[in-house]
Amino acid sequence: MFSVQDFKSVVDKYKIIFFDAFGVIKSYNGLITGMEKTFAYLEEQGKEYYIVTNDASRSPMQLAESYHKVGLDIIQHDRIISSGMLAKEYLDLKVNDGIVAYLGTESSAHYIDSSGLHTLPVSAITQYNIDQVNALVLLDDEGFNWFDDLNRTVNILRKRTIPAIVANTDHIYPITGSNEVSIAIGGVATMIESIVGKKFIRFGKPDSQMFMFAYDLIRERTPVSKKDILMVGDTLHTDILGGNKFGLDTVLVLSGNTLPDDAETRIRATGIVPTYVCESAVV
Amino acid sequence: MFSVQDFKSVVDKYKIIFFDAFGVIKSYNGLITGMEKTFAYLEEQGKEYYIVTNDASRSPMQLAESYHKVGLDIIQHDRIISSGMLAKEYLDLKVNDGIVAYLGTESSAHYIDSSGLHTLPVSAITQYNIDQVNALVLLDDEGFNWFDDLNRTVNILRKRTIPAIVANTDHIYPITGSNEVSIAIGGVATMIESIVGKKFIRFGKPDSQMFMFAYDLIRERTPVSKKDILMVGDTLHTDILGGNKFGLDTVLVLSGNTLPDDAETRIRATGIVPTYVCESAVV
Amino acid sequence: MFSVQDFKSVVDKYKIIFFDAFGVIKSYNGLITGMEKTFAYLEEQGKEYYIVTNDASRSPMQLAESYHKVGLDIIQHDRIISSGMLAKEYLDLKVNDGIVAYLGTESSAHYIDSSGLHTLPVSAITQYNIDQVNALVLLDDEGFNWFDDLNRTVNILRKRTIPAIVANTDHIYPITGSNEVSIAIGGVATMIESIVGKKFIRFGKPDSQMFMFAYDLIRERTPVSKKDILMVGDTLHTDILGGNKFGLDTVLVLSGNTLPDDAETRIRATGIVPTYVCESAVV
Amino acid sequence: MFSVQDFKSVVDKYKIIFFDAFGVIKSYNGLITGMEKTFAYLEEQGKEYYIVTNDASRSPMQLAESYHKVGLDIIQHDRIISSGMLAKEYLDLKVNDGIVAYLGTESSAHYIDSSGLHTLPVSAITQYNIDQVNALVLLDDEGFNWFDDLNRTVNILRKRTIPAIVANTDHIYPITGSNEVSIAIGGVATMIESIVGKKFIRFGKPDSQMFMFAYDLIRERTPVSKKDILMVGDTLHTDILGGNKFGLDTVLVLSGNTLPDDAETRIRATGIVPTYVCESAVV
Repeated sequence: MFSVQDFKSVVDKYKIIFFDAFGVIKSYNGLITGMEKTFAYLEEQGKEYYIVTNDASRSPMQLAESYHKVGLDIIQHDRIISSGMLAKEYLDLKVNDGIVAYLGTESSAHYIDSSGLHTLPVSAITQYNIDQVNALVLLDDEGFNWFDDLNRTVNILRKRTIPAIVANTDHIYPITGSNEVSIAIGGVATMIESIVGKKFIRFGKPDSQMFMFAYDLIRERTPVSKKDILMVGDTLHTDILGGNKFGLDTVLVLSGNTLPDDAETRIRATGIVPTYVCESAVV
Repeated sequence: MFSVQDFKSVVDKYKIIFFDAFGVIKSYNGLITGMEKTFAYLEEQGKEYYIVTNDASRSPMQLAESYHKVGLDIIQHDRIISSGMLAKEYLDLKVNDGIVAYLGTESSAHYIDSSGLHTLPVSAITQYNIDQVNALVLLDDEGFNWFDDLNRTVNILRKRTIPAIVANTDHIYPITGSNEVSIAIGGVATMIESIVGKKFIRFGKPDSQMFMFAYDLIRERTPVSKKDILMVGDTLHTDILGGNKFGLDTVLVLSGNTLPDDAETRIRATGIVPTYVCESAVV
Repeated sequence: MFSVQDFKSVVDKYKIIFFDAFGVIKSYNGLITGMEKTFAYLEEQGKEYYIVTNDASRSPMQLAESYHKVGLDIIQHDRIISSGMLAKEYLDLKVNDGIVAYLGTESSAHYIDSSGLHTLPVSAITQYNIDQVNALVLLDDEGFNWFDDLNRTVNILRKRTIPAIVANTDHIYPITGSNEVSIAIGGVATMIESIVGKKFIRFGKPDSQMFMFAYDLIRERTPVSKKDILMVGDTLHTDILGGNKFGLDTVLVLSGNTLPDDAETRIRATGIVPTYVCESAVV
Repeated sequence: MFSVQDFKSVVDKYKIIFFDAFGVIKSYNGLITGMEKTFAYLEEQGKEYYIVTNDASRSPMQLAESYHKVGLDIIQHDRIISSGMLAKEYLDLKVNDGIVAYLGTESSAHYIDSSGLHTLPVSAITQYNIDQVNALVLLDDEGFNWFDDLNRTVNILRKRTIPAIVANTDHIYPITGSNEVSIAIGGVATMIESIVGKKFIRFGKPDSQMFMFAYDLIRERTPVSKKDILMVGDTLHTDILGGNKFGLDTVLVLSGNTLPDDAETRIRATGIVPTYVCESAVV
């Protein structure tokens, strides 16, 4: 029912392309073969592109380096919009002083740290400093002891009435080089949220704030209409739902989460309808 | 624990004020006494203000008139941001032709109609035109037969893989002149969504798109920082959660949904923390 | 992966068979062809059988008559266990006096009425008798005005702290003679429950109380082990999940809700695994 | 509105008493002072009693010993009905061979082990034995490495279409001697369930199967009506909701989860109404 279209002919209709990262540019085994051609083509055609990704484990600078390592030197850090950037903006705007407790690696905290707040891992929160904790941020699933620190997180949130920020809404992510998955911090956040009964603040697709952040960056330099932007993703309920809701045209690519045989069933079952379906984002 | 502050002293710190409508400006019995003074004060001080409301039952023009009727002549239609406007923008951007089926009054459909699409009530969808239905919009809880048309809606969405748009996320609204409530179209939407198992597209607070729409309008005329904007609302999980997440400072007023005696308990229980708490939005 | 087995050879291993009604015995078009042979075979083999059905629209007597009308004279009312019987038992045990308000037809209320309580439709609840309302029962999706009476129901439950009983957990049911569905009272109940934020008491599969009711009836006459009972159903998340959890062996039949092409996908996706899969319950 | 009644005068109306354990008999600091008098009184009056508890960390024998240690020698193991017993019954009835993988302590597995199946911790499941895993049971929050084994659990359930059994539905439990809580295995189960998208089989209050198990034990020796049984608990949504639904009269005691000042608010908010409210279960 949904005809699979040629990616190049789709891309030719738009001025600006938003890409999801995993399943679109990268896969279990590194760079998806041919994606370097896509970015070369976009440069050649003078089209702008952004990577819009649910990732709060690293800074845009570090994310850009991860593309360079797999041979995609063209990706600059200012082309990367991550959910971590939104978490950082939230802290800059809304938390003025005190401690920001976090779950994640030191590296993930280093990025949000730059806002001038005092970041401390959840494991460092004690009865002596808990009263200064003014926000709790869930950044990454690594870098802490799950049993100890998830229990600590629940107890901090029972004692302190403070915002809890989830910097990545994904529930799982694939493990490179295997066909297994890991529980992402967004999945952990859902458990903690249901246990403490409080409402967390979540950043990441499908929420429009991700798209708006990119849209705003573009408009600072040049006037643009939503009609000129195409969102490319492999996941219906984040990339496509979010893109659609923000008013963008969307392409579902079949190189990641959504397998070619399942695409139609899933589109029907969810009611999340991409504007186009393409095999991959390779031109 | 949360000290109740004077609204005027709070407002004085900001350049732009966003107001929720019901429970802040209006109540069961019409205009909340003294609100005309608030808007006079804002005009006098050269502060900008917007009404940011989950309402898709009428156009901004008609909403403005409803304020004029209760004696608040100052409110102009271009100061009103409604969730209906976002639904309309979505249709303009994303649905190019065919029929848009709707649940709501003719008046609510008239507003989205202007986008050039053919709007038809769900009751007018038959086996002969169902194939042309390219979107379904839930606008208002009145104007249709619930038993017949909610069942029709379920069957349309089982047959057609199309976007379903909810133009007002509220689950209930108060009935003027009583202490009773009515089920809002957002509550009905949740039922239909769970029955058909599809993902609906929802517009309205706490979603950031509402705040972004207002923010964009302002920035077209003048540069502004989120730090300069204050969101005033009576409901924690729409007004305050949404304002906070967008990065705005927020005031919870105790003139509507959140009663003075419950405010602290609810803030603790939900973890949704306003920047300030004020008795009302009257200066 | 799941081999489809012959129903007779499966049935031969058990002494007592529980059947779901719709999709197993009856379909859109009346009796499923051949089911009269199944019941004749069970009688001949001296096996006991029960119909375990989520239905609160009629008494077991009336349900038995509905089988007689389509030519299945063998089904006696004492072989029918309905979720309505559990709702009735609840009222008998737990509500001692006053009014039981209901949503449903007069006929559905007539059945629960026999417990000696005063049953009144929600439409008859006024400010003068609301204080005597000691329970609210959701029986059937017909027999009332949805807009008026669902709004009344919400307001009754906001004013009175009383149990709300849902006598049928199904969210939809198929309309005879068409390929359309109707919203069942269980779907309506979910909406009301989420709007008033209270916990409803639900009777019906997959809840074990349905199976226990039948199990108790049998044990009054003869000792029996759960190992001797087979549950036959067409729906994974009611019949099969409920049967499994109660400790029964289960057959998924492909004559109703679960289509032959979808069975394996759905079993994998839900993790609800029947002991057997059969084309139908026809011997 | 809800008058607090004397526990002895309530108990005098019933022949059989079901007690929840934590918050009713025991608290953070061991035995609730005076509970030894309650059990002496019940013995003296010839009333039967059972402890109905969401606990799968130990056998009834070990649970009985835990009462002896705090000075309540009267509690015999055959008076204890735990959710672990239901999990064990499920495995006995429904899983015939192969490996049962588990999350929990060795001691918790030892109890279910007796059914003749081969139990192995999730950490011992490899590519070589995963095909023999026929069920996965979540028993206790201790005894395993959360990060490693929760990720392993997700991947086992992605690869194997097998029942996942949750032997304790509680989301948190209090830590003795502190005012902190621990995440219970039921809370962990909810996260895993939502991540893998499968339906788990849960045993524990408020599910009726817990009450039925006790009810059946009693009826083996003596005829009894549900009208003769009283359920005593400190938690509305497990003890009281479950007892009510099963058709029992219920007492909410204010010695545990539900604080005296919150009782009325919570009863109103949840709509879960106990038959009586008592300060504690001390006579």
